Amino acid sequence: MRLTSFIPLGENRKSYGIVTEKGIIDVGRHLAYQYADLKAVLAANAMPSIQAFCNFPANYLPKEVSFLPVIDNPNKIFGVGMNYQEKRHEFNEANPAPTLFIRFADSQTGHNDFVLKPTQSNELDYEGELAIVIGKAGKNISQQEAMSHVAGYSCYMDGSVRDWQHSWFTAGKNWPKTGAFGPWLVTSDELPDPHDLAIETYLNGRKVQDARTSGMIHQIPALIEYISTFSALSAGDVILTGSPGGVGKKRTPPLFLQDGDTVEVYVEGIGTLRNAVRSAETYADH
Amino acid sequence: MRLTSFIPLGENRKSYGIVTEKGIIDVGRHLAYQYADLKAVLAANAMPSIQAFCNFPANYLPKEVSFLPVIDNPNKIFGVGMNYQEKRHEFNEANPAPTLFIRFADSQTGHNDFVLKPTQSNELDYEGELAIVIGKAGKNISQQEAMSHVAGYSCYMDGSVRDWQHSWFTAGKNWPKTGAFGPWLVTSDELPDPHDLAIETYLNGRKVQDARTSGMIHQIPALIEYISTFSALSAGDVILTGSPGGVGKKRTPPLFLQDGDTVEVYVEGIGTLRNAVRSAETYADH
Repeated sequence: MRLTSFIPLGENRKSYGIVTEKGIIDVGRHLAYQYADLKAVLAANAMPSIQAFCNFPANYLPKEVSFLPVIDNPNKIFGVGMNYQEKRHEFNEANPAPTLFIRFADSQTGHNDFVLKPTQSNELDYEGELAIVIGKAGKNISQQEAMSHVAGYSCYMDGSVRDWQHSWFTAGKNWPKTGAFGPWLVTSDELPDPHDLAIETYLNGRKVQDARTSGMIHQIPALIEYISTFSALSAGDVILTGSPGGVGKKRTPPLFLQDGDTVEVYVEGIGTLRNAVRSAETYADH
Repeated sequence: MRLTSFIPLGENRKSYGIVTEKGIIDVGRHLAYQYADLKAVLAANAMPSIQAFCNFPANYLPKEVSFLPVIDNPNKIFGVGMNYQEKRHEFNEANPAPTLFIRFADSQTGHNDFVLKPTQSNELDYEGELAIVIGKAGKNISQQEAMSHVAGYSCYMDGSVRDWQHSWFTAGKNWPKTGAFGPWLVTSDELPDPHDLAIETYLNGRKVQDARTSGMIHQIPALIEYISTFSALSAGDVILTGSPGGVGKKRTPPLFLQDGDTVEVYVEGIGTLRNAVRSAETYADH
């Protein structure tokens, strides 16, 4: 099942639903009184209530909604840096521990929405990633149990403001509308092996990252075990599993995102997350 | 005015109130229907509603409540590492930008509550700090306007799990009950110059950190300007302004927190935050 969060165009209402080939089934219309959003659905272990709508007619075509980040209000978003060998080489990272940073929920943006290049930087970089969404809360989760805590997967464009990033990441990863999350969550039953997927990033149609998730150094069970040792995970939390090599910062010459660019992250079995880049100078609300 | 958050002993109710020499005035008892907690009070700019209770009789002695973290549910907690010269020397930090990390709200603990030493580490270190609580939301806040966004100040013991910290901090700063926050918020009108305060940390009565907040490298207006450039601040957000030198990791021999220790952080004009250390092995709930 493919699930997403959205605002129907022309309405002033956040909703969520099932994505099918015929369009989007608006489940929130029926269940929002009980589960305000997808995070609440996951927290209540209410996936069967969603599934009951899977044969309903579609309410909207994708162009008839504004996509929100798949989970627009995670309690915790953990990013994993340097989790592919080529990326580690590019950044001279030698420490064997998972490189973890935190992204706040208000740094996110949805599929087809803008990614925002800050006025204060000319080093906004792309990073295509596989995102995990936690379905079941836990702490001290073992690797053996880890996959039972995963609700599903999505694409993520972990936009990184390199000149503010430093070795502590915080200021490089938390600018508004730099973390694109979508287009939808594919539930884990439909992706039995998340470590054998093509992952590709395209900038204006040119392939700039090209790898497989099998290249992850710390795989998903290890990440969940490590993180949940020190910080409890809860439904709707997100783990960004890291980006392969090929980012713009380490190219000669560097290749950064500019106003008018289009960046796409494709993950096999999920689909393509697409975002136009807009400069904050021309985007009055930010 | 001194404000704090607490649970009255024997009750199953979070509250907040005013701390006076005679005890704690339970304001939440009267206003919780309107403002659930101190964060809500700040967000509603409702300090005058609190102040109206300042001549009410005290309801509890300090020993009759369990103190909560002053704000137990901040949206964002930013930590500033390496913000005193001696600390920078101890950690060989040369980068001039503010060293920022993020602590999640569920890593906090209250005054007189336990600080928890993880089973997985023998390097739990003390860091005494001055904490800022944001009262007024904003982004792109200038240094000139910054102080008008501060609701007040508190002590913070930014307990750090050194062997999990790395240059990216995340796993060193987010263990449960490692961030002690209290005993109360002193509103900014009572501390007109937060950069001229003694700050001292005591381990089992022995002074282990001894400095003045004038030693901050990035002072409060600069921190608020820098942070709000990339991430909006809102009422109840917390900025930990960094710890002076003298932490346990850099002593010979190192001096880490152990089960049974008592750690105290004193900030002039605020008071003393006191916590006993307990090992997670002996603390079944964690």
